[in-house]
Amino acid sequence: MDEEIKPGDKKKLGFIGIGVMGEPMAANLLRAGYDVTIFDRTCRRCEKLALLGATIASSSCHLAQASKIVITMVSDTAMVEQVLFGENGAAEGMESGAVLIDMSTISPTSTIEFGNRLAALGCEMLDAPVSGGSNGAITGTLGIMVGGHREIFERCLPIFQVMGKTITYTGQLGNGQKTKLVNQVVGATNLLGAVEGLRLARKAGLDIPTTMQAVMSGAANSWMLTHLIPLILKEDFAPGFSIRLQHKDLKLLTDWIASLGGDFPAAQLVYSLYSQAMEMGLERQGNQGLINIWEP
Amino acid sequence: MDEEIKPGDKKKLGFIGIGVMGEPMAANLLRAGYDVTIFDRTCRRCEKLALLGATIASSSCHLAQASKIVITMVSDTAMVEQVLFGENGAAEGMESGAVLIDMSTISPTSTIEFGNRLAALGCEMLDAPVSGGSNGAITGTLGIMVGGHREIFERCLPIFQVMGKTITYTGQLGNGQKTKLVNQVVGATNLLGAVEGLRLARKAGLDIPTTMQAVMSGAANSWMLTHLIPLILKEDFAPGFSIRLQHKDLKLLTDWIASLGGDFPAAQLVYSLYSQAMEMGLERQGNQGLINIWEP
Repeated sequence: MDEEIKPGDKKKLGFIGIGVMGEPMAANLLRAGYDVTIFDRTCRRCEKLALLGATIASSSCHLAQASKIVITMVSDTAMVEQVLFGENGAAEGMESGAVLIDMSTISPTSTIEFGNRLAALGCEMLDAPVSGGSNGAITGTLGIMVGGHREIFERCLPIFQVMGKTITYTGQLGNGQKTKLVNQVVGATNLLGAVEGLRLARKAGLDIPTTMQAVMSGAANSWMLTHLIPLILKEDFAPGFSIRLQHKDLKLLTDWIASLGGDFPAAQLVYSLYSQAMEMGLERQGNQGLINIWEP
Repeated sequence: MDEEIKPGDKKKLGFIGIGVMGEPMAANLLRAGYDVTIFDRTCRRCEKLALLGATIASSSCHLAQASKIVITMVSDTAMVEQVLFGENGAAEGMESGAVLIDMSTISPTSTIEFGNRLAALGCEMLDAPVSGGSNGAITGTLGIMVGGHREIFERCLPIFQVMGKTITYTGQLGNGQKTKLVNQVVGATNLLGAVEGLRLARKAGLDIPTTMQAVMSGAANSWMLTHLIPLILKEDFAPGFSIRLQHKDLKLLTDWIASLGGDFPAAQLVYSLYSQAMEMGLERQGNQGLINIWEP
């Protein structure tokens, strides 16, 4: 890829994985004027985007043949491997010089391995996991943490700017995923703190709005406290970000920590609690449903 | 006490405990025009405030005889009990109708017991622990969480407004302490999350300012991340709020939780980590020194 990709270019973007996140992200690219080819193994997920002008490919390989840049937004590491290197995978169709941008949250170690395999084919890879959930995807305000060669990042920046607001270049390939996992341990720990504060206030019979207002006004404040405690108080457990995905990310985190070595007690604790939430069948709730481990 | 206490009233306020917090709090009351009598068992701590016009009492009892309202700001539950009910204690000198405002952070259970003993003498009590550390005390911007009878709270409000910014009436006596402990579990857990994120980013060789900026820009943000991580990056472990006091508060928290019953894993974890920090001799560092458990 020699030049910047601009809206209106033909035969440029492919988007694999038209789910809760991928659909609005691809829709924003279409609305910005990009020519986008899409693929999802569940065909009907592509229908809405076709109305916005997307071309539907019959496989990841066909999609890659029609694209200079292939974006993947799928559920996990195994699925990224399959859409890239499985039967009729994207790698088969990518020409030398093409770029793969994986926006899924997957293993940083596997990311580096996938990048090496693509490099052997003359292709580039960026890892670009996101934060901000489905709402951020719809409004084009995702946080995007990007790893890979800086010049490739800069050429792809206009694409990221369509989908996100805070776009951070984090260094070499894999660093996007690592930054995302750092983000996840901090966020999950903050949410545990907020939930535990609420549970304690309830158990003690304190007035909840008064207590939460006092806690929010000082050094104990956090985004999680401000945004998710009000949902819990309304008994709104709809997923902005689901327990299933939180658990998946924390599993990636603890696997990564195991490979790094060292003692990370908050990561261990939040992973064990979200594992418990999964066993209790809470996987479809939003991550604020953590409290339902104790208050089912 | 029948009327509101105003600046310029004579023979009104007593302040026991002229330490890192008490000195600037009493200084703000003096500057606001209150007539303040002070006592500390370490005599020389009173010298600076005498220059601002404070009267030095020779015991808590003498101080109480000269005061309609007695404020205590001392280190722990045992010390509050001693200055109130020990030899030459304040309770001996308080007249019927006097008010005791305890601004120390101590056991909520003991607070209620002390209030009952004072009530038997015809005296009122408010518990009013603070957040915001020495900086908040100096600038008069403390968070103050007040429990006790509402009419007594309202009469004392002008005094609180001199020392604090966010003043929350939390309900009956003891609720101030309970609210403070809820605040402490949330804050300590957030700090653990922030520290663990930083440790992980360092271990992974990520660029630290870039990573922290990305984390701060989204759902993982917290006051602790924004305010204490920059201190850690400068290797500034001076106490705004010390590990010794954080540990003391978390001990009060876990004792209280034990009396309530229930599973509060974040509280258990942060208490065990601050106990470890104490054993490692980190007690004089600020609470951001938590990271030195792993990076000594």
